[in-house]
Amino acid sequence: MRVPLLRPSLLTERLSFARRSLPLTIRKGISQSRKQYRALSPFVELTSVRHPEIKRGSYSRLTDKDLSVFESILTANRCISDPTDVEPYNVDWMKSYRGSSSLVLLPKTTDEVSQIVKYCNERCLAIVPQGGNTGLVGGSVPVFDEIIISTRLMNEIISIDDVSGILVCQAGCILEQLDRYIEGHHLTMPLDLGAKGSCHIGGNIATNAGGIRYLRYGSLHGSVLGLEVVLANGKILDCLSSLRKDNTGYDLKQLFIGSEGTLGFITKVAIACPQRPSSVNVALVGCQSFADVLTIFKMTKKKLAEILSAFEFMDTETMTSVFVNLGLTCPITDSPFYVLMETSGSNGNHDEEKLNDLIEELMTTGLVQDGTIAADLTQIKYLWSLRERVAESMVKDGTYCYKYDLSLDLSVFYDLVLEVRKRVSHIPHAFVVGYGHVGDSNLHLNVSSPEFDPHILSLIEPFVFDYVASVSGSVSAEHGIGIHKPMYLRHSKSESAVSLMKLMKQTLDPHAILNPYKIFTS
Amino acid sequence: MRVPLLRPSLLTERLSFARRSLPLTIRKGISQSRKQYRALSPFVELTSVRHPEIKRGSYSRLTDKDLSVFESILTANRCISDPTDVEPYNVDWMKSYRGSSSLVLLPKTTDEVSQIVKYCNERCLAIVPQGGNTGLVGGSVPVFDEIIISTRLMNEIISIDDVSGILVCQAGCILEQLDRYIEGHHLTMPLDLGAKGSCHIGGNIATNAGGIRYLRYGSLHGSVLGLEVVLANGKILDCLSSLRKDNTGYDLKQLFIGSEGTLGFITKVAIACPQRPSSVNVALVGCQSFADVLTIFKMTKKKLAEILSAFEFMDTETMTSVFVNLGLTCPITDSPFYVLMETSGSNGNHDEEKLNDLIEELMTTGLVQDGTIAADLTQIKYLWSLRERVAESMVKDGTYCYKYDLSLDLSVFYDLVLEVRKRVSHIPHAFVVGYGHVGDSNLHLNVSSPEFDPHILSLIEPFVFDYVASVSGSVSAEHGIGIHKPMYLRHSKSESAVSLMKLMKQTLDPHAILNPYKIFTS
Repeated sequence: MRVPLLRPSLLTERLSFARRSLPLTIRKGISQSRKQYRALSPFVELTSVRHPEIKRGSYSRLTDKDLSVFESILTANRCISDPTDVEPYNVDWMKSYRGSSSLVLLPKTTDEVSQIVKYCNERCLAIVPQGGNTGLVGGSVPVFDEIIISTRLMNEIISIDDVSGILVCQAGCILEQLDRYIEGHHLTMPLDLGAKGSCHIGGNIATNAGGIRYLRYGSLHGSVLGLEVVLANGKILDCLSSLRKDNTGYDLKQLFIGSEGTLGFITKVAIACPQRPSSVNVALVGCQSFADVLTIFKMTKKKLAEILSAFEFMDTETMTSVFVNLGLTCPITDSPFYVLMETSGSNGNHDEEKLNDLIEELMTTGLVQDGTIAADLTQIKYLWSLRERVAESMVKDGTYCYKYDLSLDLSVFYDLVLEVRKRVSHIPHAFVVGYGHVGDSNLHLNVSSPEFDPHILSLIEPFVFDYVASVSGSVSAEHGIGIHKPMYLRHSKSESAVSLMKLMKQTLDPHAILNPYKIFTS
Repeated sequence: MRVPLLRPSLLTERLSFARRSLPLTIRKGISQSRKQYRALSPFVELTSVRHPEIKRGSYSRLTDKDLSVFESILTANRCISDPTDVEPYNVDWMKSYRGSSSLVLLPKTTDEVSQIVKYCNERCLAIVPQGGNTGLVGGSVPVFDEIIISTRLMNEIISIDDVSGILVCQAGCILEQLDRYIEGHHLTMPLDLGAKGSCHIGGNIATNAGGIRYLRYGSLHGSVLGLEVVLANGKILDCLSSLRKDNTGYDLKQLFIGSEGTLGFITKVAIACPQRPSSVNVALVGCQSFADVLTIFKMTKKKLAEILSAFEFMDTETMTSVFVNLGLTCPITDSPFYVLMETSGSNGNHDEEKLNDLIEELMTTGLVQDGTIAADLTQIKYLWSLRERVAESMVKDGTYCYKYDLSLDLSVFYDLVLEVRKRVSHIPHAFVVGYGHVGDSNLHLNVSSPEFDPHILSLIEPFVFDYVASVSGSVSAEHGIGIHKPMYLRHSKSESAVSLMKLMKQTLDPHAILNPYKIFTS
């Protein structure tokens, strides 16, 4: 049995089918939410008001003299202090956190960052490094009046080596633009994520971003070859090696990967880029249960092995959110669970043969009832949009989203979604979805409601984090700790690890000026 | 044109041809060396005598009371103090370094290591952690009287997860035994190296070992998911996460990967193991110049892409060493350069088609004059032995070997071998070979002579390190710094990096009891 390719006529037919077949209760819930958030203002409560337990550290307050110093380093037009212009930098992309900074600095060079940070350290002025501001735990926005240093103007590509595949660039380069640039060199970026159109590579590294190709290309701890970092005292740490192998002493750059801007300010990056695959296939299949998703995963790993580059799952609620809120349509029969798989390889015929064999086996065994393989780039992009635009669909028109990014053993992976759904089942318009990177045991659990509601929060937290700790999972698989989870750090880290983390922080940033209130509770 | 498979009759014929065709001068040099080292005693000079510039730190001296404390922790039979029994632990595998320790401790558990290290820290007794003692820079043997703590009895496999592929084990497990164990779970270790039969996984991680599959599976910084480490104060740092993704705070374990036992004692390991390939092919081809090796590499990367798992080169002198010293024979026509390439994939037919296409193209273009694809596992092992046994061949019968493990841009990669060969050309029996991991820009440059000769050393060092620094390479790609290269650390690391490395060392090991004299000059 072969899976039919996606043809326009079929697509239209299926889409209308998909629309018709949405469970009525779910459609109603979402429609109600949409009506409500039209009426909501875009107001985002100050983090310091929403979290009164967080107290401002004993940092200096910004003075006119400070501003004139920064203007002397950067010129006035790269020091933003008009409140209206500063505001977008104060609020995170999810509209969950809002700081009250009155100054955004836009350096272009490492030396400028160094001068700024050195001055702030001497003056005991707190700072928050900010990249594309696409983080999901409030790590890149201020909590109080921290000065925002943005990498927006640090976007120079320094070098690319065709043979070794090593890219060197400034921290403010946008991920998607880098990928487009190196495409001409037959290379691809070793990470890819929904926010690629605006996230900065420096922010990706500070967050240790995972994303949809982690399964294939692994962690940034492996891909990042070198970093240049401005330390809290303003000194420039040059670890910008662009060698695939270098065992000369401690691999210091690793400390900054995933440190969320609390140990240093990343200014330059050297990263190993793999060969760009000449053949990419994407398939979407539907199945009946999460147990079937796991069986499909095992079979897929075996059959696709080295060409498997993504294995994502979405539950039917996730897809409903995308369909209703973004107007996307389902190219296959509605199913309780969906799997999106991608292959990337060097020989189109071989890859298609492997993928077709797999899909045939999945349908023959009855694990999959319907599925489609994208026939061209447009269809590939369309199938991916069903997965990549989930985050966007969950906050459409100002809806508030409680987001959880968890690592869990696959044997208990989806149980948590069911548990949370049960806990909020009596709340009107609370909508629970589960999706994520099954290949990396990484679950994204999202709960949306028309606006932030402490009662809903109390039903979810600390329940979710306690559950994760009880099965030795991680309370943050890829998003980081930020301001969202410091109180749950010990759910996933031993006391000995937290002590050593604090020792590292004290050693590298004794005045704690770098991104305060993040990662640690105090 | 198809490459003939290796058949026994052809093999015999080719081997005799290979033997006949060895350049006379090279054969003569090697024969002379072999005669000489038969006459040499196995005596290895004390490192403290050979390097009088290294002064013993102000550590305590071992007393009978100390010994009785260790015996109370471990029982007497796991405290080796008989000089004859201690001696093998004092000398490194390369027979380049010899310490004068009088005590070897053999803990079995983390708790025992913790008690020992805590006591040593309080008493200011220096210690050296030792795994399989297969390191190549003297990192795992004492310089003076440091107490040796061996992981030999810490060899328990704790768990293996079939679905996620995550292995958890004690640090003293032997790499090859782990690979055999997980073979039954359709998994493979993400690293492989010549010393696999005796090296310990803890030592691999402490060294950040690279090896022949680095090209495919990348760095241990990506594969190692968790570590348990005993810190200098005896406290147990639990970072033994076995999750593929965990972004909860700083990734502390990274600090210990490649720290050569100077920051902590690794006791347990969690490592992600990839799917074991069901199809492995190995080909050996000969070519005329190193420029051709590079062209072949570019074509191979493009054609084999995701199934390429190794790309190694050996010059004719390297192969001569293996043939003459180990009695191995060449299955293809003698060539100035040889390339050994390996594919690992999930579909034998696809892999063979890709490899055959490549070899055909290489021969059609005239880049390759002769080559062979191994027909079965025995032949695969044989072809690999030509590469893996180079290190052994260079120290056969006590010959001294000056070993260099360098990262260099491919454009200047082999020039260094030619330069060094020129510099020692007037020294009888000095023999220079170049081989290594072209795919990772990692050159192994070896010079052998019948015995250690300071004059030869002065011709090679600091020349080699200066050359590497002048082209922004690394003076240690994968072997580490150990006792061999502390004075050249700054050839590959910036002053800012060395300062921060020292700060890390002082912070984590204030009494400097862990593996002193290694990495840093003071």
